[in-house]
Amino acid sequence: MTSPLKNVSIVLVDTRTPANIGAVARSMMNMGLSRLVLVRPRDPGGDEARRLAAGASQILDSAEIHSSLQEAVAREGLVFGTSRHPGRKRKNIRTPRDMAAQTLPFLSRNRAAVVFGNEVNGLEIEDLMLCHEIISIPSSEEFPSLNLAHAVMIVAYELFTASRVNGAAPDSELAPHRDLELFYGHLQETLQAIEFLGHDRPERIMFAIRQIFGRARLEARDLSILRGILTSILRKTR
Amino acid sequence: MTSPLKNVSIVLVDTRTPANIGAVARSMMNMGLSRLVLVRPRDPGGDEARRLAAGASQILDSAEIHSSLQEAVAREGLVFGTSRHPGRKRKNIRTPRDMAAQTLPFLSRNRAAVVFGNEVNGLEIEDLMLCHEIISIPSSEEFPSLNLAHAVMIVAYELFTASRVNGAAPDSELAPHRDLELFYGHLQETLQAIEFLGHDRPERIMFAIRQIFGRARLEARDLSILRGILTSILRKTR
Repeated sequence: MTSPLKNVSIVLVDTRTPANIGAVARSMMNMGLSRLVLVRPRDPGGDEARRLAAGASQILDSAEIHSSLQEAVAREGLVFGTSRHPGRKRKNIRTPRDMAAQTLPFLSRNRAAVVFGNEVNGLEIEDLMLCHEIISIPSSEEFPSLNLAHAVMIVAYELFTASRVNGAAPDSELAPHRDLELFYGHLQETLQAIEFLGHDRPERIMFAIRQIFGRARLEARDLSILRGILTSILRKTR
Repeated sequence: MTSPLKNVSIVLVDTRTPANIGAVARSMMNMGLSRLVLVRPRDPGGDEARRLAAGASQILDSAEIHSSLQEAVAREGLVFGTSRHPGRKRKNIRTPRDMAAQTLPFLSRNRAAVVFGNEVNGLEIEDLMLCHEIISIPSSEEFPSLNLAHAVMIVAYELFTASRVNGAAPDSELAPHRDLELFYGHLQETLQAIEFLGHDRPERIMFAIRQIFGRARLEARDLSILRGILTSILRKTR
């Protein structure tokens, strides 16, 4: 039996320090993960990355490289974004432990990705928009900024720990990310047609709406119902 | 109230790489730990350690330095040794999660230390002898050797997480059931107005739609966005 962890991708966006990419590869291999995806990385196969990868350079060698996050996660079923500063107002931010427990049962038939931003700023809002849910690692309020590889290690460790607890049964088959993006495009068009959204700056509301549907674990069948509703609305309003 | 975590020491024995000491300091401070104890360290206050400590160099500055582990743990109440290679024969080896859960209640009146060996060999048997219990971080059998700072991070993270469980704040506040039912009523009315749903037998589709939103763990704020959308649709179609 292959490990459900083979279906997990760790996605690093705009990583600046090659040593961090290497340290991430090592922590992934320690925790039974193997799929590393890099979006616009800096020197991922260089000496510094290899030195920190220790015995895990095979993960660097097989890393996928993409020029955008949207392209990188197009085939993923579940996409989690990590945020260092959850803020007081944002709700429904999950811990890595909760994420791991709820994700494991999906992994027999679906792929999942956890996305990490760069060392200084974390993920930009445009990248968080592409994520179904946001997770945040519990940390001291006085000094919350984790090293990138440490953050990946905690997420990988929670997934590994959950994989040993669960003898999980196969569950549902999630809609791939690109189909979800087509739905969000259709939804935004509809919300503008009914004048719920204006044409400038729809991002903030769309972000909140994406979070709602992101949590809903949409399958192909759900998307066809929802898109059927949007089509009916557009037909009525034109 | 002072945090029980103030009574936890992280003890590093024979650490060879100053960068690791710095990275350990950072991970400790991220997780609310402050007491670092070094046994025969190499250059703990040097540039490399400081660079990796990022904003946590105060932990390096206040680190205790000892020439033997026995001296270093003399005043501790509970002493845990970490082992990378638990082996099949050793029994009673605990996980960091289990250690954290069982240690927290002691910390209001006792001190506890977690001891880590050097980067290559871990703790020697003479050092493990000084420990009350041995803990081992779960990891892949194929590649079990963790970076020292990553190992400390996992232990610190488990202690921090355990410290929050007792007084943990509620996370999100879900919308009460009656508000959800009002939303579904509003939604059904809207779906009939746009002729997505007929007036007889809407139950089957409504059931599928309820399942979608049911998984989304809706809060009051989410409901107000969704009902705002429904209101806009009805205004447009009447």
